[in-house]
Amino acid sequence: MIMKSLISAFGLFCAVAAATFAQTTSPTPELYSQKTLDDLVRIQKAATSGTYAYDQARYMSATIGPRLSGSNEAAFAVQYVADQMRKLGLDVKLQKVMVPHWVRGVETAQLTEWHGMPPGATRNVVVTALGHSIATPSSGITADVVVVNDFAELDRLGRKNIEGKIVLFNYKYDMGLQASGFGLAAYGQAVAYRTNGASAAAKYGAVAAIVRSAGGSQSRLAHTGLMRYQDGIPKIPTGAVTFEDSETIAYLSALGPVKMHLTLTPQTLPPVESYNVIADMKGSEKPNEYVIVSGHLDSWDLAQGAIDDAAGVAAAYSVPAILKDLGLRPKRTIRFIAWMDEEQGGTGSDAYYAEEKGNVANHFAAIEADLGASHPIGFKFSGKPELARYFGPLVTVLRPQGAVLAQYQPGGVGSDIGPLTNDGVPSFAPFFNEQTYFKYHHNAADTFDKIDRGEIGEVSGVVAVLAYGLANLEQPLPR
Amino acid sequence: MIMKSLISAFGLFCAVAAATFAQTTSPTPELYSQKTLDDLVRIQKAATSGTYAYDQARYMSATIGPRLSGSNEAAFAVQYVADQMRKLGLDVKLQKVMVPHWVRGVETAQLTEWHGMPPGATRNVVVTALGHSIATPSSGITADVVVVNDFAELDRLGRKNIEGKIVLFNYKYDMGLQASGFGLAAYGQAVAYRTNGASAAAKYGAVAAIVRSAGGSQSRLAHTGLMRYQDGIPKIPTGAVTFEDSETIAYLSALGPVKMHLTLTPQTLPPVESYNVIADMKGSEKPNEYVIVSGHLDSWDLAQGAIDDAAGVAAAYSVPAILKDLGLRPKRTIRFIAWMDEEQGGTGSDAYYAEEKGNVANHFAAIEADLGASHPIGFKFSGKPELARYFGPLVTVLRPQGAVLAQYQPGGVGSDIGPLTNDGVPSFAPFFNEQTYFKYHHNAADTFDKIDRGEIGEVSGVVAVLAYGLANLEQPLPR
Repeated sequence: MIMKSLISAFGLFCAVAAATFAQTTSPTPELYSQKTLDDLVRIQKAATSGTYAYDQARYMSATIGPRLSGSNEAAFAVQYVADQMRKLGLDVKLQKVMVPHWVRGVETAQLTEWHGMPPGATRNVVVTALGHSIATPSSGITADVVVVNDFAELDRLGRKNIEGKIVLFNYKYDMGLQASGFGLAAYGQAVAYRTNGASAAAKYGAVAAIVRSAGGSQSRLAHTGLMRYQDGIPKIPTGAVTFEDSETIAYLSALGPVKMHLTLTPQTLPPVESYNVIADMKGSEKPNEYVIVSGHLDSWDLAQGAIDDAAGVAAAYSVPAILKDLGLRPKRTIRFIAWMDEEQGGTGSDAYYAEEKGNVANHFAAIEADLGASHPIGFKFSGKPELARYFGPLVTVLRPQGAVLAQYQPGGVGSDIGPLTNDGVPSFAPFFNEQTYFKYHHNAADTFDKIDRGEIGEVSGVVAVLAYGLANLEQPLPR
Repeated sequence: MIMKSLISAFGLFCAVAAATFAQTTSPTPELYSQKTLDDLVRIQKAATSGTYAYDQARYMSATIGPRLSGSNEAAFAVQYVADQMRKLGLDVKLQKVMVPHWVRGVETAQLTEWHGMPPGATRNVVVTALGHSIATPSSGITADVVVVNDFAELDRLGRKNIEGKIVLFNYKYDMGLQASGFGLAAYGQAVAYRTNGASAAAKYGAVAAIVRSAGGSQSRLAHTGLMRYQDGIPKIPTGAVTFEDSETIAYLSALGPVKMHLTLTPQTLPPVESYNVIADMKGSEKPNEYVIVSGHLDSWDLAQGAIDDAAGVAAAYSVPAILKDLGLRPKRTIRFIAWMDEEQGGTGSDAYYAEEKGNVANHFAAIEADLGASHPIGFKFSGKPELARYFGPLVTVLRPQGAVLAQYQPGGVGSDIGPLTNDGVPSFAPFFNEQTYFKYHHNAADTFDKIDRGEIGEVSGVVAVLAYGLANLEQPLPR
């Protein structure tokens, strides 16, 4: 995932009191009928004991593989998921989206000169191109490396020290935040360099920009992701080096000049027609009110896009599968969306909002799962703070799986539903401790083995209980 | 490190009672004089508060870089370490060793066919050539993959299922053993496939053999290391794939045929003259009795050889540096050895033993540090079990750093000193919990950042206290 509007992970914790109450009498009949509460218990049990989400995530990760926007795999995944939804008897629509088609090429780097180097030695540097980067010449470029720790240091050095050089942004992903469970906050800080580093360096005449990986791996894995060129500034090639290589280059450049040979040959091809998959399970009472449950279908290309976001999209489309299995039909329409192109600009999200912006009032709530598949400790929500009072019974249903926190997060809870959130739609996401997600996010280790069978069942439980509970809520939500 | 004679990690724990005793009076004057005990306390403090080993390990890892046998870097490291020892005033000898010169080439793999594949897709597989592997043609080879979990399964399948195929040995490194602190035992089981897999598969007509990485990384890192071709069996190319790729291929091949395109182009060049660095700090009373303190100077080439074994060799040569700094001279000669070519056959160890085998009786003890630089919890020893009674005072000296266990390990404690151990020389090594070592061992993440300043100081403390204590022991050791 990327965050269009950066989410603060330090939102107000709003732990909803989850008082025990008898299953036989709804304590809040004005919110949820007794039948709904009983059904929610069945849904939570089915989600956490079943393997639908797990099996689907495996198919998308291990069988289909990485699903980069514009790729064969992404196109195949669209058809695959649409077929799964048709099998469930849902109303399926493929919503056309023109997506970027950027493809990775050669990506290598070596240090060729440094203080104290053994004669004749070169040193391999692990590098990966950032999404939408232009290429170096196929023979690469060679230049001195200037290491800066942040944008302020770059500005202090200025053109006279930067021109003709390769800039390494050595901004450190905060491992302490990650260890404390707030990987997203650490990512949010570091990702600014990945996104904006190239143009910031090019402004002073740099020939390339490399960034320290904006993630928490300490296993020599480079972290890719989207970058954006600023208008009116020359485009220069840009990539990410690993934590380890960044540390080494910073150390060596403190001893003397460091020269690097860098080759990145990605290509930007013409945009490709692709699709959001939209599948409706029609509501029995208010079919024109929608509760969206979603994840994104595209991924980065270095691994299998398992935790980002096969897990999320599979958990989302497990909701109609579970409801069908239990013979349940929601009062409002549950709309599953497999977003296309979350990773390279959110063109899928934009296309959906463009089509639905006159109909936002009918979007009752939106749920997005895009932070992996570890044990969810509850859910986050955006919108009015007073939404909190609607969730007590849902938290009670989720208590058996340890998902008991409802965290209020004013800035939004997911990028694909962001336009809806900004337009007032109450928005929801599973709430995770982020100690492990960013170790694998956007790097070569985002593979199916990172998904635990029990934990993805819990994610399915959170989104299914939220989706069905909101779809059957007896009142409108404040917005 | 590799283990020539496989060490059982389940040796008899022989926790030496470390009873508190007054520093002012030696409780065991028949073993260690009061002066020796007082000096050992100073040595332990100097080792754990100093940064000599840390700085040296950084220079070898980050400045010199990987030190593959036969490489420029290895040659440079020989001269560098010899110079450091000369600066300390030691008697330095370069002992000639003809070492293998194997160099890595292209190493790529893709799956080109599998059940359920998106049309036109290929899937990248992370692979690394095993040391001494022959090459595929430069255009690679393409063949179906047969997955076996162990040698017995290979034998059951036999020639009719193996001929013309690429065999994947999917033997699982035991993560449970690693989590329990016994990574070396897990490695010892898995490494048999890395070493012998190629010839075992070739016996049945396989065209290549790939092994699941014989290490504990779960971050898409392939684990290199030495392999050996069996005489009289055709040589086939062989590499290691990551844990993740092995899992994926095993999953896909349970669904249907899997085809792989594999390109490995390493080269075996003529052997190169290299050296063990031997540096003696002459004993004041028994200059012809030797206590060896050692680590290995060569490394694998995927990273920086930091924990394997810049850390160990730097901790070893911190011993003479600390003694010189404190103005101490041992009674017996402390002989530092930086072994060459531990990784590709132990030619350095063999050369030393060949020259010294008539003089083994004068080798009082041998210490080797080759299991990284995490917090040592004591030391291991090989030889007569009754050696244990000599170590109580040393354990007491090491207690402030938490290194309080003396583990008896009959099979040997290190590969370079193995020939001496087998010939009766009491042998010693730092004793580590092995929960993390094999996450980085022989893969691309063995970089300097994996070494903690405090912990390598503790390793230095263990080897220095052992070396000086043994060099000043008032009695011979039973052997």
